[in-house]
Amino acid sequence: MTAPPSYLDLLKAVDNFPYIDISSTPYVEDANLAFYRLLLPNDSRTHGYIRPSIVRKLTWPPAFQIKHNIPRTVQLLDDSNGKDTAAACNRAFYEVIENAVKDKTFPFLTSMQWENYRLMGANYETVQMLRSASRLFGIASRGAHMTAYVRTNNGMKIWVGRRSAHLITYPGMLDTTVAGGVRAEESPFECIVHESAEEASIPADYVRENAKAVGAISYIAKGSAADAESSSLLIPVVLYNYDIELPEHIVPKPEDDEVEEFYLWDVEQVKKAMISRQFKTNCAAVMIDFFVRHGIITDENEVDYLDIVTRLHRTLPVATASSQRAD
Amino acid sequence: MTAPPSYLDLLKAVDNFPYIDISSTPYVEDANLAFYRLLLPNDSRTHGYIRPSIVRKLTWPPAFQIKHNIPRTVQLLDDSNGKDTAAACNRAFYEVIENAVKDKTFPFLTSMQWENYRLMGANYETVQMLRSASRLFGIASRGAHMTAYVRTNNGMKIWVGRRSAHLITYPGMLDTTVAGGVRAEESPFECIVHESAEEASIPADYVRENAKAVGAISYIAKGSAADAESSSLLIPVVLYNYDIELPEHIVPKPEDDEVEEFYLWDVEQVKKAMISRQFKTNCAAVMIDFFVRHGIITDENEVDYLDIVTRLHRTLPVATASSQRAD
Repeated sequence: MTAPPSYLDLLKAVDNFPYIDISSTPYVEDANLAFYRLLLPNDSRTHGYIRPSIVRKLTWPPAFQIKHNIPRTVQLLDDSNGKDTAAACNRAFYEVIENAVKDKTFPFLTSMQWENYRLMGANYETVQMLRSASRLFGIASRGAHMTAYVRTNNGMKIWVGRRSAHLITYPGMLDTTVAGGVRAEESPFECIVHESAEEASIPADYVRENAKAVGAISYIAKGSAADAESSSLLIPVVLYNYDIELPEHIVPKPEDDEVEEFYLWDVEQVKKAMISRQFKTNCAAVMIDFFVRHGIITDENEVDYLDIVTRLHRTLPVATASSQRAD
Repeated sequence: MTAPPSYLDLLKAVDNFPYIDISSTPYVEDANLAFYRLLLPNDSRTHGYIRPSIVRKLTWPPAFQIKHNIPRTVQLLDDSNGKDTAAACNRAFYEVIENAVKDKTFPFLTSMQWENYRLMGANYETVQMLRSASRLFGIASRGAHMTAYVRTNNGMKIWVGRRSAHLITYPGMLDTTVAGGVRAEESPFECIVHESAEEASIPADYVRENAKAVGAISYIAKGSAADAESSSLLIPVVLYNYDIELPEHIVPKPEDDEVEEFYLWDVEQVKKAMISRQFKTNCAAVMIDFFVRHGIITDENEVDYLDIVTRLHRTLPVATASSQRAD
């Protein structure tokens, strides 16, 4: 019998890209790690990491200048004559992704009809690309999660969702109360407000008034491009976390077809489900952060306490804030 | 006129050791960074980083084996014949530090009469050394901070302490409600319980019942050895954070001579004092973490949000948990 995973084991399953300082090292020795850095116009900071096989497979429009020597770079040029750099970037990303859709380069890229993700650290508002393609470019993606809890006479209870069985990713697994990818044009808080209504029938006004921003967690996933090659992608992720205390009369109910059911569980039930790996992997990380902030996981009861806390907040090797400040 | 510091600027003043991956790189090119790794018996993990000039100045007992080639190491040997490895380590640390006290090697090391700090990641319970000497060995030090707040009709108010004018470190500056170094033999929570009584006259029973563990922050300070040489030390720090909500009738009062006065301030007053650098530097970091957890600093109002959150939780280049697990 295998020993049950520790909380740190659960985090390692999410934050599974090797702990190497990829931002400062070319890693020529290891072809698998010799990523191309994605550079935006007039900005020397790295915004993404692209695997060599992805660079080879994509059909790049002329706005992208590719340098194969170390340090390898994919430099996006500004072909707007200084008029609207963000729009120029967005056209270029649209074009390279549209080429891949047309050419059926990747099995998961079948349509341009989906929401966009923002390039978090871009100096131009709002540089964006198709959500389903963002993993290929290794840009940081933004998600938002809200954990709803209820104070009862028998202690704290937590609202846990079960994902629908027909979902492509993590079907039937447990989830946070409300979660979603943050669209390019919205803030994490706006994402939570509309997802609360769409996924859990929690009134938008109540969420707007009572949801509390409580921090963010960050990790780097070793994703797959689901193509023939086994080498991994580098996917930096930021999850913005919110807590909300619900009165007993507000009961989350599945509204769209993404959630099958909600359970109101006590802490022991949630722990048990985590340890038996019933949670979607990154939702386990959100729940561990919740446990840390609420004094459920402490230095006194958890030998890995500090490693858990730092691992929940990995420094990402991409720009995550604009370098152009207002005065 | 200089612009006021951002929250991220305040964090950079605390977490001021360069962001280099010192654990995986010898840094031979830069003599200043060619630290010696401190190794404990039967354990290949690094427990501290010692500056070359410190290695030269100290008089090492035979239990320490020093290797000057890259990677440079100070290896502590077990001379207990397997009887009590922790005691053997502690004798060796006592001896090398006592030598420095006798020889007056460092101006701040004048006495062996002070509390001890634990080596966090040691596999033997409890390896420890004199608190005032710990910075020389670059071991992780543990502190605990508690922020007391009051919910009033006019919003949240926070209890802020002012350090006594006669303290050697940061005299007269602002501080968290309760804080202290965690002694080798105690847990962070125990530290907060007794410091609450000693520093702020908050009843131990009330703290034990109501203080809530809410996470930890970590950083690496570029300390000085206060000797003739200008090159810096590497000081990894962990601060365990606690929140406590106080009813209006429990009022913190200075009890020992470390705190001069307590103020009950609203969030705007605390912000103003932070931005004008009136807080002890690491207390500003604790307060920023409090602001993040309480939804005062959010992604919507702070451009550096993610950088702040990750910077508050730096991965430390030393072992911070025992590698020997119970089954």
